[in-house]
Amino acid sequence: MDAKTCLKKLEYVGVLAFATVDAQGNPQVRNISAVHYEPDALYFFTARGKDFYRELLEDGRVQILGYTRYKEMIRLSAQAKPVSQEEQQKWIDTIFREQPYLENVYPGNTREIGIVFEIRDAQIEYFHLGVHPIFRETYVIGNGREKEKGYRITDSCIGCGTCVSVCPQRCVTTGDAGTPYHISPEHCLHCGNCSEHCPVSAIERV
Amino acid sequence: MDAKTCLKKLEYVGVLAFATVDAQGNPQVRNISAVHYEPDALYFFTARGKDFYRELLEDGRVQILGYTRYKEMIRLSAQAKPVSQEEQQKWIDTIFREQPYLENVYPGNTREIGIVFEIRDAQIEYFHLGVHPIFRETYVIGNGREKEKGYRITDSCIGCGTCVSVCPQRCVTTGDAGTPYHISPEHCLHCGNCSEHCPVSAIERV
Repeated sequence: MDAKTCLKKLEYVGVLAFATVDAQGNPQVRNISAVHYEPDALYFFTARGKDFYRELLEDGRVQILGYTRYKEMIRLSAQAKPVSQEEQQKWIDTIFREQPYLENVYPGNTREIGIVFEIRDAQIEYFHLGVHPIFRETYVIGNGREKEKGYRITDSCIGCGTCVSVCPQRCVTTGDAGTPYHISPEHCLHCGNCSEHCPVSAIERV
Repeated sequence: MDAKTCLKKLEYVGVLAFATVDAQGNPQVRNISAVHYEPDALYFFTARGKDFYRELLEDGRVQILGYTRYKEMIRLSAQAKPVSQEEQQKWIDTIFREQPYLENVYPGNTREIGIVFEIRDAQIEYFHLGVHPIFRETYVIGNGREKEKGYRITDSCIGCGTCVSVCPQRCVTTGDAGTPYHISPEHCLHCGNCSEHCPVSAIERV
């Protein structure tokens, strides 16, 4: 998998969940399908009267989530920015051309209440529950920041094998080098079972 | 539409988006299908090692979003709470029985790293873009708090009719009583076009 394929898969999913935070710190999430996809960016339409618009303008942090028919979860973490005034009309018209149902929602000139935001720099998390062992990876588009997550076995490991036996995905390997044991990050659920069971607290969150 | 039907529709959707806020105030959203539905409550499974678990335990505010094949968006705003220690096993086993794929993810005893949260009190927003005019309503389960949103025309209305002509959904009515005009909240997009165009600023956000 890679970043471009993830964006293409999101395009096929069509309807994505966009999560933001409101001024009171409440989580907010809604479905958006008014999206135009470039190979390494996306553009989406909303209206200037919506709470969503205020949250984007005042804070801008957004997570965008799509779930494919193959049980793949694809998530972008990014900062959304309005496209420049000069380019608004071009992107609004592009999105309306690609998503004809929008004409039913905003007929005629009423699309002028719209505004288009862009996502150029993002971290992408790919998480596939439909394979065994499960599979995850992270990618970046533009100047997206890659943030590590999960669990790591430290040098305190005594090689007792408890973590190997309790891992639901069997993703702990003893390795040739003896201790410390190793967690394969691409197969890890982040469930924490290894960490809870380690008798010497050698497994820490990244 | 009503609250119970919304929950039943979410059950048919199967895979929902759960949005929370992390300790740094970032929006977080992921898909969850490990859910058990009661007529007026829902129970969902996660693992104690996940960020999601921490966000639920430390903050608990959650928005749960489902999108039906009929273009209906159904959204619950709630406070999630872990079910009591005595009831954990019962709900974990219920969810695993109803969602057999979970056995692939957490085989054997490894489900013990799981924890079940419940949603009993929630506001539900129903939003249907697949009809014309669009349709929205809000409902409540348990002691959920109903929060009004949208736009209202105040007594400053001069009856010029601008809002009627710019409303994408034609949901402003002049009424028998003359001014102020009236916005039908069940058909309003919350796009703000009426408010932007009102020459006397008579239309305010609720």
